[in-house]
Amino acid sequence: MTHPAVPDTGQRNEATHPSSAVVHFGAETPLHLEGGGQLAPWSIAYQTYGQLNAERSNAILICHALTGDQHVANVNPVTGKSGWWDTMVGPGKPFDTNRFFVICSNVLGSCLGTTGPASFNPATQRPYALDFPVVTIRDMVNAQARLMDHLGIETIFCVAGGSMGGMQVLEWAASYPQRVFAAMPIATSAKHSAQNIAFHEVGRQAVMADPEWRKGRYLDEGTRPEKGLAVARMAAHITYLSEQALHRKFGRNFQDRMAPTFSFDADFEVESYLRYQGRSFVERFDANSYLFLTRAMDYFDLAKDHGGSLARAFSGSKTRFCVMSFTSDWLFPTRDSRAIVHALNAAGASVSFVEIETDKGHDAFLLELPDLFNTTRGFIDSAARAKGLTISGVRTS
Amino acid sequence: MTHPAVPDTGQRNEATHPSSAVVHFGAETPLHLEGGGQLAPWSIAYQTYGQLNAERSNAILICHALTGDQHVANVNPVTGKSGWWDTMVGPGKPFDTNRFFVICSNVLGSCLGTTGPASFNPATQRPYALDFPVVTIRDMVNAQARLMDHLGIETIFCVAGGSMGGMQVLEWAASYPQRVFAAMPIATSAKHSAQNIAFHEVGRQAVMADPEWRKGRYLDEGTRPEKGLAVARMAAHITYLSEQALHRKFGRNFQDRMAPTFSFDADFEVESYLRYQGRSFVERFDANSYLFLTRAMDYFDLAKDHGGSLARAFSGSKTRFCVMSFTSDWLFPTRDSRAIVHALNAAGASVSFVEIETDKGHDAFLLELPDLFNTTRGFIDSAARAKGLTISGVRTS
Repeated sequence: MTHPAVPDTGQRNEATHPSSAVVHFGAETPLHLEGGGQLAPWSIAYQTYGQLNAERSNAILICHALTGDQHVANVNPVTGKSGWWDTMVGPGKPFDTNRFFVICSNVLGSCLGTTGPASFNPATQRPYALDFPVVTIRDMVNAQARLMDHLGIETIFCVAGGSMGGMQVLEWAASYPQRVFAAMPIATSAKHSAQNIAFHEVGRQAVMADPEWRKGRYLDEGTRPEKGLAVARMAAHITYLSEQALHRKFGRNFQDRMAPTFSFDADFEVESYLRYQGRSFVERFDANSYLFLTRAMDYFDLAKDHGGSLARAFSGSKTRFCVMSFTSDWLFPTRDSRAIVHALNAAGASVSFVEIETDKGHDAFLLELPDLFNTTRGFIDSAARAKGLTISGVRTS
Repeated sequence: MTHPAVPDTGQRNEATHPSSAVVHFGAETPLHLEGGGQLAPWSIAYQTYGQLNAERSNAILICHALTGDQHVANVNPVTGKSGWWDTMVGPGKPFDTNRFFVICSNVLGSCLGTTGPASFNPATQRPYALDFPVVTIRDMVNAQARLMDHLGIETIFCVAGGSMGGMQVLEWAASYPQRVFAAMPIATSAKHSAQNIAFHEVGRQAVMADPEWRKGRYLDEGTRPEKGLAVARMAAHITYLSEQALHRKFGRNFQDRMAPTFSFDADFEVESYLRYQGRSFVERFDANSYLFLTRAMDYFDLAKDHGGSLARAFSGSKTRFCVMSFTSDWLFPTRDSRAIVHALNAAGASVSFVEIETDKGHDAFLLELPDLFNTTRGFIDSAARAKGLTISGVRTS
């Protein structure tokens, strides 16, 4: 297996001059943050697909994962690749853009146009770097709510997302229950586990150990903590797959050779693959954003925010939930989804739960899995019927 | 939870001037290596406990794990702590030094007195560093066999070890079947999995990413890749535990605070714990040894060395085996042990297998577990009866 060369694609430009639509909020409309303080001015970059109907009732908000972005179903301006959920979002696809108006915004703290540590800090006249406030999942959701206000969308037909995206879905349902008609948290958890915090801490320490990180000031100083961030990504990438998937894809196969070299070359395909994952990640993602977003996930504990009761987070909820997990996901194992389902049941909410059999691990939510597609399609169609969604002004598929 | 300061304990001295007994092999007695070439002169450092009986038939060889050492049951000269298997080895303990002569040698490629990358290379008049040959598990075992020859021990009563130690046990049984009466491979595998190679590669890249590593020449240049090695250890340490154990020990508890600081401080106990594990490891272990030993584990594939058949590796074996695994070990899961047991059964060997129920993960083999102790005691006693071991010249417990 040979991996292509990594292009230098100008990720830094997207942070400050995104290819997406952007809403700018001025000094008079600050974003108040969970950790105290506020952010102003601030911006949120987003993509949309399909058309908003006359009733403004057919919006689907997709929430992206840790290193995802708003480029769900268009060519990614940084990597030149297809959108990360291109298989799920589009005409006739499970999130059918012939029927629905699909929105995805870059999360607060990220680096694709929404304000984050790579953004320009007007107070210091240089990039925020570690002067950026530590934001939370709730802050991300509050920022998205402001975007929804701006777009004139009061009730979102469905909020959906996997992994950190699923955390945002849960936070949306808890913080804005009246604005969320349906919710699809996929491969996620209502709180980050000790093991997951541990893996994140390894990644952060790897970035911070790189002298080119310059205490976060690498953008000012014209360096980049490439090696540290690549190591962080390599460690994280293992957790996104499963032991079985790694065995099936790579096993102990040698890379372009028949026998071991008795050296530290990438003898094994799995080593070559991981090194490529690390290198290519560095080209598309900001190291400080990686620190801030992993931290936001670590801090996520929805029950704690509601007096220690997850059920209380959803009490009185009229939202329809579809919770999904994957059998081989060890980052957000099925028991995390079951805890969400139990809380929703205890809260008397409407919930369906599907555990999908696959050996593809956590990243299964990004892949073309018939069970994922069929479950999504079935849930969306049933919710659309329940909401009495007509297909006004939008051609049918 | 507060962690003690890490003392600077002079690990570097132990590599060249160990506190252990050492056998030196001169230029005329080279060690031939699996990767081709040879090592000469070379040395092997070891500790012993108890007394060898007149028949030289009561020797137990303990094989240590990746970052273990020969200090099984004495105070460790580097850390000042008790030996790593102090609970298992001693008078009246499962490996009873009142009855048995217990030996443990530092593995080839390590840094506690046996020749490794931190050792002096007579050809270059400086430490080997990356000039050290990439050694294998078989090379380690061949070196141990030379030590056994030197000690006049033809047949070893029992070879035992966990993790990389267990790999050595399997290699001993395959390479020297007539010299091994009983064998206890614990929490191990006959081949390293793709996922485990992947984690090792992350660790190696973390070390090599540290500019203080100096392409391996840090000993000459008076530096130390502390940050890189600490990150490697942190990542590896997670794999030695289980998700349940991390949850039980740390959960989402804060470290010395009641609320999050909204910063990158070690807010969570698990972060503080991991950082301590990383820092303290750097003080006791050589970074290049870490590279070489992880590589040796990656290369281990006993079936491949026997025409692709693990059963063939043990064909005709008269050795009595006791294979042990732990339910929550995800680094060397029970299925790896089952594969060994199946091969031994197919080879017609004598084997008992115990899967021990515990939530403590891979490192369970280092802990005080009654099931581990009782299984070991039972197996050793039964093997001793089968061998007709008398307790000549050694007081009974």
